[in-house]
Amino acid sequence: MSNAIIKIKKSSGEIVNFDIHKVERSIRRAGITGSQVKFISKQVANQVREGMTTKEIYRIVKNELKKVNVGSVYRYDLKNALLRLGPAGYKFEKYVASILKAYRYDAYNPEYDLQGACVGHEVDVIAERDGRRIFIEAKFRNDFFDFVNLKDTMATWTRFLDLVDGASLGKCEHFDECWIITNARFSDRAEKLGVCKGIHLVGWNFPKEASFGHMVDNALLYPLTIINDLTDNELDILASKDIMLCKEVLEYEAVDLAEILGADLQRAEWLIETAKKITTKTPA
Amino acid sequence: MSNAIIKIKKSSGEIVNFDIHKVERSIRRAGITGSQVKFISKQVANQVREGMTTKEIYRIVKNELKKVNVGSVYRYDLKNALLRLGPAGYKFEKYVASILKAYRYDAYNPEYDLQGACVGHEVDVIAERDGRRIFIEAKFRNDFFDFVNLKDTMATWTRFLDLVDGASLGKCEHFDECWIITNARFSDRAEKLGVCKGIHLVGWNFPKEASFGHMVDNALLYPLTIINDLTDNELDILASKDIMLCKEVLEYEAVDLAEILGADLQRAEWLIETAKKITTKTPA
Repeated sequence: MSNAIIKIKKSSGEIVNFDIHKVERSIRRAGITGSQVKFISKQVANQVREGMTTKEIYRIVKNELKKVNVGSVYRYDLKNALLRLGPAGYKFEKYVASILKAYRYDAYNPEYDLQGACVGHEVDVIAERDGRRIFIEAKFRNDFFDFVNLKDTMATWTRFLDLVDGASLGKCEHFDECWIITNARFSDRAEKLGVCKGIHLVGWNFPKEASFGHMVDNALLYPLTIINDLTDNELDILASKDIMLCKEVLEYEAVDLAEILGADLQRAEWLIETAKKITTKTPA
Repeated sequence: MSNAIIKIKKSSGEIVNFDIHKVERSIRRAGITGSQVKFISKQVANQVREGMTTKEIYRIVKNELKKVNVGSVYRYDLKNALLRLGPAGYKFEKYVASILKAYRYDAYNPEYDLQGACVGHEVDVIAERDGRRIFIEAKFRNDFFDFVNLKDTMATWTRFLDLVDGASLGKCEHFDECWIITNARFSDRAEKLGVCKGIHLVGWNFPKEASFGHMVDNALLYPLTIINDLTDNELDILASKDIMLCKEVLEYEAVDLAEILGADLQRAEWLIETAKKITTKTPA
């Protein structure tokens, strides 16, 4: 590739310079060795042409990843896997509980409204650890570029305060912390309010070193939606059994998994095999 | 009219029994005598036919009102006049300030953001009286049947708390009260939270005896948008001079009003004459 600047087109329509370092950074998430990252991004750079869309480049990246490590393609696709947890969002709430469980929280989705001092509130996730009880709003967004904005965050804060007040009146149990977890992003003002009030915000890339993406990648907590070939029906069945993670599939024998799915043994074996590839980061 | 039950159609498509008492109640708002109310609602009842829409009945009511008292037709149309304060909502904010001024508050629309403890906030209206300072969110809705919901109300409450905290840090002046004023309605849960937290809620028909509609009717604070024949351009010019109420027009000489409007004397005289009719409730 020459050193000439190549212009590409973002999904927003914006024209920007192609940046190989951005590609490198995004590939690093896929869990492959440093030399593989270098090798693949060079392969991608060689194929990028003036005016290409980020979507086309994304496809080239996936194609190159596949040649090096099959699991990495899935992992690289995490953003889209998260979108597949929608559109209703209830699967996202379950997924968040699963992630927190993997991080050794006692986490669950309460089935009933909790009574605050003034009104009842639907609570997405409750997590407990080391004697602290955490109120969590799981804000699913169908568009990764969507924001959890200041208004959302202000509303969550009043909800939290009302539950804390409710607890002091004996209407519900006490909460020590307020979290908002989203697959999308926080607006600048939402971030500012959250940090200032002590709301723990977790977004796709916030906070930098402990973002949602990192939480998933670091502990290999890939949702089953990352497996494109699973049908919506299969995903629903697994969710109904609180099986949300690739990792969780590995706790089952193929014969049991087949029974849960109402599928044949081969399908269950394939699922376990795929889940294993995705949750194994050592290069193939 | 026979005593047979007549079915009519609401704008929602719902079929309901025609109820003469409802017509009476709605006409009472128009500021006419009790015997006129009785007379008109009888006239209306005589013209209602099976399957008529509420919109058609509304037109009959207006037609009958016009025969009795010209100003009453305008007053009866307040709901629609309020919708004409949209869609941007900034005219509604100005109108709310005008109403509060008429109720002897020192009210204004601040031009700059106020600094709370955590973030800056756009504040719609500030009102002061008897040493108390009030933070007001003016929530305009383009659809009268729309709600200010629990989330809106929770967000407003955090905004208020953040400003109160900001004041204690010396970032802004203190507020003693939090109000939400809307041309539309509050959801049940928003009402519950507001009443419980001490947020002063004012909606089209809430609270029953001191609703937005009552505030306007009782003190004849009809917005200039109630005069259908005023053009959007004329309304904009008047708003830019903070002339939002029919009452306020009466403080001007025709010659001055003509100059403000960039119109001829006749137009200004007509405007003053119309404003006078609307703000005079004694039957013609």
